[in-house]
Amino acid sequence: MLIGRVIGNVVSTKKDEELVGLRLLLVQGVDKQGQTAGQMVVCADSVGAGEGEVVLFAGGSSARQTEVTKNRPVDHVIMAIVDEVTIEGRTFYRKEHGFV
Amino acid sequence: MLIGRVIGNVVSTKKDEELVGLRLLLVQGVDKQGQTAGQMVVCADSVGAGEGEVVLFAGGSSARQTEVTKNRPVDHVIMAIVDEVTIEGRTFYRKEHGFV
Amino acid sequence: MLIGRVIGNVVSTKKDEELVGLRLLLVQGVDKQGQTAGQMVVCADSVGAGEGEVVLFAGGSSARQTEVTKNRPVDHVIMAIVDEVTIEGRTFYRKEHGFV
Amino acid sequence: MLIGRVIGNVVSTKKDEELVGLRLLLVQGVDKQGQTAGQMVVCADSVGAGEGEVVLFAGGSSARQTEVTKNRPVDHVIMAIVDEVTIEGRTFYRKEHGFV
Amino acid sequence: MLIGRVIGNVVSTKKDEELVGLRLLLVQGVDKQGQTAGQMVVCADSVGAGEGEVVLFAGGSSARQTEVTKNRPVDHVIMAIVDEVTIEGRTFYRKEHGFV
Repeated sequence: MLIGRVIGNVVSTKKDEELVGLRLLLVQGVDKQGQTAGQMVVCADSVGAGEGEVVLFAGGSSARQTEVTKNRPVDHVIMAIVDEVTIEGRTFYRKEHGFV
Repeated sequence: MLIGRVIGNVVSTKKDEELVGLRLLLVQGVDKQGQTAGQMVVCADSVGAGEGEVVLFAGGSSARQTEVTKNRPVDHVIMAIVDEVTIEGRTFYRKEHGFV
Repeated sequence: MLIGRVIGNVVSTKKDEELVGLRLLLVQGVDKQGQTAGQMVVCADSVGAGEGEVVLFAGGSSARQTEVTKNRPVDHVIMAIVDEVTIEGRTFYRKEHGFV
Repeated sequence: MLIGRVIGNVVSTKKDEELVGLRLLLVQGVDKQGQTAGQMVVCADSVGAGEGEVVLFAGGSSARQTEVTKNRPVDHVIMAIVDEVTIEGRTFYRKEHGFV
Repeated sequence: MLIGRVIGNVVSTKKDEELVGLRLLLVQGVDKQGQTAGQMVVCADSVGAGEGEVVLFAGGSSARQTEVTKNRPVDHVIMAIVDEVTIEGRTFYRKEHGFV
């Protein structure tokens, strides 16, 4: 899984039937400086994440192992909202305070 | 999934039997500036996308979860046409207006 | 799938039993200028491709969905020979003429 | 699999049910100079790894083949703690001495 | 699959049960100049490869299709020892002579 931030969302009406009812959020990975970096990825949302939240997202067939994504043609899913990240004994991120 | 633009198509007559009847479209990803960038990918089309349209495409085994791609040797599929993308509260793309 | 060119082949006698009888071809991707670029990939061949031919190749579990690759430990397969590629309304490649 | 070092951990309370009970560790790959490099990856832990330890981690569907990760939406797992790595006949890493 | 060279090995005693009995070899890809390049990957060995040998290795779920890797948490496997590689009609590598 990667640590990312929800930066937006995607609306689509003409889509494969298996996508109906899924929330599609735009996520960008977070680097060691706490900055969003790299490619934007569209993730199905399995936890009710909101814009700006720091989340964990998974890719590949593992993205189809949550209740909401089973057998659906999605290759990325948000499956956790991050409360805290510690790196080398120091707090790197805390939900209430953001990246330190 | 990634946001991409349909930039062309591929015709093949000599192919694995499991590919017969699939439309094969060329897609290139779209970056945060709304520009196509990166590698061209050939996707099976599950939604009737047309050239120039902005779409969502998925890779890996997830690409085989649509009705038209089940059990076929395709590793990328277009499974949605994008109506609107919002980034940090602003409209980034709208089907009628293009990238803003 | 990616568009690639067959640039060579690989011979191996000491190999996993599941590989016996497969033709193994070296493929390199083709970029938007029609040039081979990037990493060389060894693909199983499901369509009788020859050296120099422009092909489609797929990766991951999708590479095991052709008749010749089912349940075999191969992660890339050539599953189509390309006749024609059109980009933004123009012919980019035609089998008789090569890249334009 | 890749050789990596455990550099931290992630705490999440709001998450997909299938993640409950998993330890989530932050891992960064190790390059040929013995330095951590590249993207931070969040791995499920199947072996009781501790911070600073050098481990093997696997990605994709293979990450779901350990006892603790079966059918869970995780795409990376730590499945071994490294005792020793030898490169070209020389010790590259030994658990008691670190990278040489 | 990729062409690589076995550059070393990894020893681990504390590991997931499903890894017991597997030989774990360090492999690095070979580029078009016959040089090892890119990231070191730890592969399960299904063919008895030795250090210095030029091999084919596969990744992802395909790595679990050999007799020795079925259902195990490994994402890369060596499944062939290379005898000869030909590129554009010329010998690129021959087991007795190395890269030409």
